[in-house]
Amino acid sequence: MFKKKKVFNDKLAINAIRATVIDITNKAKSGHPGMAIGSAPALYTLFAKHMVADPLHPEWINRDRFVLSAGHASALLYTILHLSGYAVSLEDLKSFRQIDSITPGHPEFGLTPGVDATAGPLAQGLAQAVGMAMAETMLSAHYPDSEKIMSHYTYALVGDGCLQEGLSQEAISFAGHQKLNRLVVLYDANSTTLDGPLTNSFSEDVKARFIASEWQVIEIADGNNIRAIDKALTKAKKSQRPTLIMYHSIIGEGSANAGTYKVHGNPLGESDGAYAKGHYQYSYPPFEIPAEVYDIFKDTFIARGTNAYKKYEAALNVYASTHEKQAAEFVNNLGLDINNYLNQPLLEFADDFKDSTRNTSGQMLAMYNRLVPNLVGGSADVAHSVMTLIPGETDYSFLHREGRNINFGIREFAMAAIQNGILLHGGLRSYVGCFLVFSDYMKNAIRMAAIEHLPAIFLFSHDSIAVGEDGPTHQPIEQLVMLRSIPHLNVIRPADARETAFAWQLALKSTSTPTALILSRQGLPVLPGSGSEDMAKGAYVIGKEDNETPDYTIIATGSEVSLALDAKKKLKALGIDVRVVSMPSTYLFDQQSDAFKDNLLKVPYENRVAVEMLSPLSWYKYAKTVMGLDDFGASAPAKDVIAKFDFTADHLVKLIKGLKK
Amino acid sequence: MFKKKKVFNDKLAINAIRATVIDITNKAKSGHPGMAIGSAPALYTLFAKHMVADPLHPEWINRDRFVLSAGHASALLYTILHLSGYAVSLEDLKSFRQIDSITPGHPEFGLTPGVDATAGPLAQGLAQAVGMAMAETMLSAHYPDSEKIMSHYTYALVGDGCLQEGLSQEAISFAGHQKLNRLVVLYDANSTTLDGPLTNSFSEDVKARFIASEWQVIEIADGNNIRAIDKALTKAKKSQRPTLIMYHSIIGEGSANAGTYKVHGNPLGESDGAYAKGHYQYSYPPFEIPAEVYDIFKDTFIARGTNAYKKYEAALNVYASTHEKQAAEFVNNLGLDINNYLNQPLLEFADDFKDSTRNTSGQMLAMYNRLVPNLVGGSADVAHSVMTLIPGETDYSFLHREGRNINFGIREFAMAAIQNGILLHGGLRSYVGCFLVFSDYMKNAIRMAAIEHLPAIFLFSHDSIAVGEDGPTHQPIEQLVMLRSIPHLNVIRPADARETAFAWQLALKSTSTPTALILSRQGLPVLPGSGSEDMAKGAYVIGKEDNETPDYTIIATGSEVSLALDAKKKLKALGIDVRVVSMPSTYLFDQQSDAFKDNLLKVPYENRVAVEMLSPLSWYKYAKTVMGLDDFGASAPAKDVIAKFDFTADHLVKLIKGLKK
Repeated sequence: MFKKKKVFNDKLAINAIRATVIDITNKAKSGHPGMAIGSAPALYTLFAKHMVADPLHPEWINRDRFVLSAGHASALLYTILHLSGYAVSLEDLKSFRQIDSITPGHPEFGLTPGVDATAGPLAQGLAQAVGMAMAETMLSAHYPDSEKIMSHYTYALVGDGCLQEGLSQEAISFAGHQKLNRLVVLYDANSTTLDGPLTNSFSEDVKARFIASEWQVIEIADGNNIRAIDKALTKAKKSQRPTLIMYHSIIGEGSANAGTYKVHGNPLGESDGAYAKGHYQYSYPPFEIPAEVYDIFKDTFIARGTNAYKKYEAALNVYASTHEKQAAEFVNNLGLDINNYLNQPLLEFADDFKDSTRNTSGQMLAMYNRLVPNLVGGSADVAHSVMTLIPGETDYSFLHREGRNINFGIREFAMAAIQNGILLHGGLRSYVGCFLVFSDYMKNAIRMAAIEHLPAIFLFSHDSIAVGEDGPTHQPIEQLVMLRSIPHLNVIRPADARETAFAWQLALKSTSTPTALILSRQGLPVLPGSGSEDMAKGAYVIGKEDNETPDYTIIATGSEVSLALDAKKKLKALGIDVRVVSMPSTYLFDQQSDAFKDNLLKVPYENRVAVEMLSPLSWYKYAKTVMGLDDFGASAPAKDVIAKFDFTADHLVKLIKGLKK
Repeated sequence: MFKKKKVFNDKLAINAIRATVIDITNKAKSGHPGMAIGSAPALYTLFAKHMVADPLHPEWINRDRFVLSAGHASALLYTILHLSGYAVSLEDLKSFRQIDSITPGHPEFGLTPGVDATAGPLAQGLAQAVGMAMAETMLSAHYPDSEKIMSHYTYALVGDGCLQEGLSQEAISFAGHQKLNRLVVLYDANSTTLDGPLTNSFSEDVKARFIASEWQVIEIADGNNIRAIDKALTKAKKSQRPTLIMYHSIIGEGSANAGTYKVHGNPLGESDGAYAKGHYQYSYPPFEIPAEVYDIFKDTFIARGTNAYKKYEAALNVYASTHEKQAAEFVNNLGLDINNYLNQPLLEFADDFKDSTRNTSGQMLAMYNRLVPNLVGGSADVAHSVMTLIPGETDYSFLHREGRNINFGIREFAMAAIQNGILLHGGLRSYVGCFLVFSDYMKNAIRMAAIEHLPAIFLFSHDSIAVGEDGPTHQPIEQLVMLRSIPHLNVIRPADARETAFAWQLALKSTSTPTALILSRQGLPVLPGSGSEDMAKGAYVIGKEDNETPDYTIIATGSEVSLALDAKKKLKALGIDVRVVSMPSTYLFDQQSDAFKDNLLKVPYENRVAVEMLSPLSWYKYAKTVMGLDDFGASAPAKDVIAKFDFTADHLVKLIKGLKK
C-alpha cells in the first residue's frame, strides 16, 4: 500500500445516517424509521467496507448486488445511496415518499440508481437475492476463465417479517441445497414486529433453521458492533455455503420509544427525533451531513467501486482478445434483449398435427435452448408434466453450475421470485413452470415481475377442467382472470401448436413485459390458418363468415377455439353465420386501435359470444354472452368432466340459437 | 380388562390395504399409488391402534381429526375409511376418480364421510390440521370442566412435497410457538418427488427444522415397523409439544419400480400390480378383502370409536346437568350457524359520521365479540392497521387458550389455511385480516375456503391506491377482481359505516360461503340512505334520478360511491340526469332475477358507467364504460396519488359528458 490505512470516524457516519433517516421520515410525515435506524451500522459496514459497486455505473453487470428485502427500511437505503455517490441527491431525500420522486416508500427497481430490486412484499427480496446469486454462478460457469468479468457477491438485508414468511424457507432451503456461497444475508433481529414484541407470534430458533437448511450462521450480540459485522462479512465471503449474519439490534435506537413497535411504522416526530439525536450526541441541523462523512464514502465505497469498474473494463478488453467469441456473447447478453437470437423461422406443423400445447411448448423450449445460449429455466417439480425439462441438457446443481435445467423443488413462490432475481441480475433469460391452478401460490411474485418490468416467462399447463381426475383442487377456474388482471402481464393462451410456437416467440422477444403461456394438458388439433403474423395483435379471424356481415362473432382461446369452429359448422347448417376469432392475448388486443378492434369483432357487442372453459369474468369486456365456468370442477376423466359441465359445441350452438336478435 | 388382548394379523391388513390401493388406481387408470402404498403401515397403525372416531357419527365434534395433507394419496385414505366402517363402499372404491363418485382424486370435505378436510394443494392440509388442533384448545378452554366432551387429537399425514412448500414452515412455526401438543404429524419420508429423487432439489435437515420450530421429532428408520410407529404415536400423545413422526418408506414398495418417481403418479398396471402383490405374498383377487381384515377394524377402530361416542353422549348429559348454561351453548355451537346471536339491531351511525370502513369494521368486531361467544380471529401482524384487535380481549397463547385475539404472525397463507382448519373443526366462527394487496399471499387458501363451503371471513383493508405512501407494492389494483372471480366467495366492499355494519352481519349470517370484506384505510362519510335492507341483494339505488328515466346509471363501490354522488351533483348542473347504484357485492347481485337487475340498473348497458379505483375488469359485466385503474399505483400521500391518476368526480363527469348518446 502506498499510504497508511486511514482511520474512519465510523461512529459519526452511522450517526449521520441515523439522523438523516429521522429527518427523511419526519419531513415525509411517513415511513418506517425503526429498522432503518437499527440497521444503520450493519448497512454502513457493508457499503463502506465490503460492497463493490460503481455509483457511476449502477447497471454494471459484475457489481455486488444489494437487496433490501425489508423494503420498508427504504429511508436507510436511500441515505446510504446518497452518501455512496449514486444519483440520489439531498433533494431526492427530501422528497421521500412524495409524488414522482425517486425515493418512494419501498425501493423500486429501475427508478432509483443503486436499487437492485423492488422490495416490500416480505421475503421476496430475499428470494430475489437467491436468484441473483444463482445467476452469478450460472454466468461464471458459462463463460470460461471469466473470473475477472463475472465474480461478485449478493447481499440482502432481512428482518423478522421476511423470515416469518413461508417464502423465506423455500428460498433458503433452495439456496442451501445449491450451496450459493456468494450469498450473504444480513438479518436485523430486533425482536419487534408491527403488532408488538416478536414473541407474541414467533419463538422459533431461526439460527437452527438456517443451519438445518445448510447455511453458515454467524450471530452478533450487538448490532452496533461494526468490527464484529466487518469480521462476519469477511468470513461469509470465504464460506462454502450461503451465510446468515444475524445481529441483534434495538429498533429505533435512541428514540424514547426505542425497542418497541411504536417506532416501526411511524416517524419519530420533531421532539423524539431531537431526543434521539441527543442520544447519538449528533448536533448537525436536519439534512446537513458533515463533509467528513461524505469523505468516508469517497475513500471507501466510491474509491473501491470505481477502481473495480476500471479493472473490469480492462479485463473485458483482455477477455475479448483471449476469448473472442465468448466475450462477444457476454457483451451481447448483458441486457435482457435476445432478439438477435430469434430470427429463426418458427417450427412448422402439418395440418393434421395434433398434440397438447404443453408438448409443443416443450418442443419450442428444446429449440430455443439450442438457439439462445443464455436461456435457463425449470419447474416446481413438474418438469415431466409441464414439459420444462430439456432433454440432453444438464441439471443445474452445485457440481454443474453450467446446467440450464433448474429443479426448483416444490416451491412455486420461491421459483417465481428467484426467476425475478435471475432477470434482475441480467445476462440471462429464463422461464419457470407449474400447473395453472398453482399460479395461486406465486401470485405476488408474478405481479412483482410486472412491477419490475422483467420479461419473465411463466409456463402454466393443465389449463382447465380438462385436467380431469385430479379434481377441483387441481382444476383452474378463476386463475386466468387473475393473471389477465395483472397490469403489464401478457397472458397468452394458444389454441394449437402453431399459436404455441408464435406465443413462445412473443414471450422471448419481450424485453420488459412478463408473459404467461397457458398450456393444455390434452391434445389439440392444428387449426387451418392458425398462428399467422396477425397473432401479434392479440386476436385474428380463424373462422371467416360466409356473408358480408355475420350474425354473431364467437371469441375463443386455447382448447375452445376448435370447439368454436365446430359450433360454427353446426350453426351454418342452421342458417346462422358466425365469425370465429381466436384471441390468445387480450393484453395485445387491448393495445390495438378501436378501428382494428371493431373491424375484427365485426358485430355489435350484443352479438358477440365468448367461450372459454374457465371463469367468464375475463370476457364481458368483449362480449355480452359468455360461455364459461362459474363453479369449481370435478374429479373424473376429462371427457366426463367436460360432459358434466356440458362444455360442448352443441351447448354453444344452443346458447347462440337462444339469443334474441 | 375382561378379555385377553387380541393379536391381530397386522401384516395381512396392511397387505390388503396395499393391494386395494393397487386395485383402485388400476381400475381408475389414474391416481397416485406410490405414497399410498408406502404409508399404508403408518396409516393402518394410526387407525387401528390410536384414532378415536365413530364411523357412524362422522361429524362428531370430539372425534380425533385426520387430515391427509398429501391428498394425492387418497386411494389409501378411502381404503382405510372403507375398512373403518365409514359409508364408503367397495363400489365407491371401484368408482375412484369417476364422475360424481364420493372417491374423487383428492379428498373433498363434505363429500366423503370420514374426510375431515379437502387436501391436495400441498401443505394446506398440514396448516388446516394446525387450525383444528388450535380449535380444540380454544373450545376446551372456553368450556370449564369439558375434558370429557372436548378433548381430542389432530393427526395429519404429509409428504416431502408438503414440507418443501413454504406454507409448511409458517404452519409448523405457528404450531410450535403455540405448543399445540395434541397435533401429531406423520411424515412419509420416501425421498422421491414427482420429478425424481428428492435430492435433486432438497437436502435440508427436516428434523432439525422442526426442532428449531419447537416440535418433538421422532424418527423411524423403517416405515414398515408398525411397533415403532405405534410407540411413537403413544409418545406423541403425551408430548408437551406438537410431534413429527418421520418414517422412512419406499415409495410404491413391492412394485418393480419401487423407490422411484415412476410409481408416484401413475397406476402400477396389471402386470406390475400382480408383481407387487406377489411381493406382499397376498393372493386375494382384486377388490376382495379377507373378512379377517374387516374384523380387525371392527375390533379396533370401530369398537373404540363407537364406544367413545357413547361415553361422549353420556358425558354431555352429565355436563348438561352440572353446567347447564355452558352445555346449552356448547350444543348450540356445534355447527357454524350463529344466526341466533345476530338478532341484535345494527350499530347506528349519524348522518354526519365519517370514518374509515376499517375502523367501523373494528367497532363491529368489538360488538360481535361480546354477542357471539365462539367468535375468534386475528391478523397477520397488522392488527392495529386492519383493526382486528379486540380491546380488552385476551391474546390467544399457550398460557391463555381462552384468548380470542390471535396473532398469526407475518404468515398470511398459514393464517387463511389455519382459519379453514378452525372452521372445519366446528364449534367456532372466525375472521382473519391483512392488507388487500397481500390477499395475493393467501389466494389458494381463500379458494380452499370456498371449495370447502366454509363461512370464513377475510378482512382486507387498505383497499386502493389511497394506501398512499407505501407505494405500488402495497397498493391493490387487481386483487379485487382476483377475489371476485373465486366461485362462491362473497366479496363485499362497503361504501360507508352503515354498509360496513350490514356487511359484517351478512358475513356472520353465512353458514357455508366465505366472505371477504374490503375495507378502506381513509375516512369515508356516511351516505344518505346507505346500508338499507336492500343491500342484501348486493346492490341498491343510493342516488335516485330526477326524471323518470335517467340518462346514465353510475355503479360504484366503497370509497367511490361518494365520488359518484359528487359527480351526480355536478352532472345535474350540466343537465345530465344519473342514477347512482351502490353495488357492494356483485356476488349477491348476480343471484338476483333478471327483472331485478334490469330494474335496478335502469338504463341500457351502453349507458352504464362503473367506477372503482382498482382494475376495471370486474365491471364490464355490468357497464360498458368503466373508470378504473389499469396500472400499478405510486408512492405519495393518498391525495397526490389519487390526483396523479385523476381519480376524481370531475374526471367522472368529463368521462360521462364524452359518452355518445
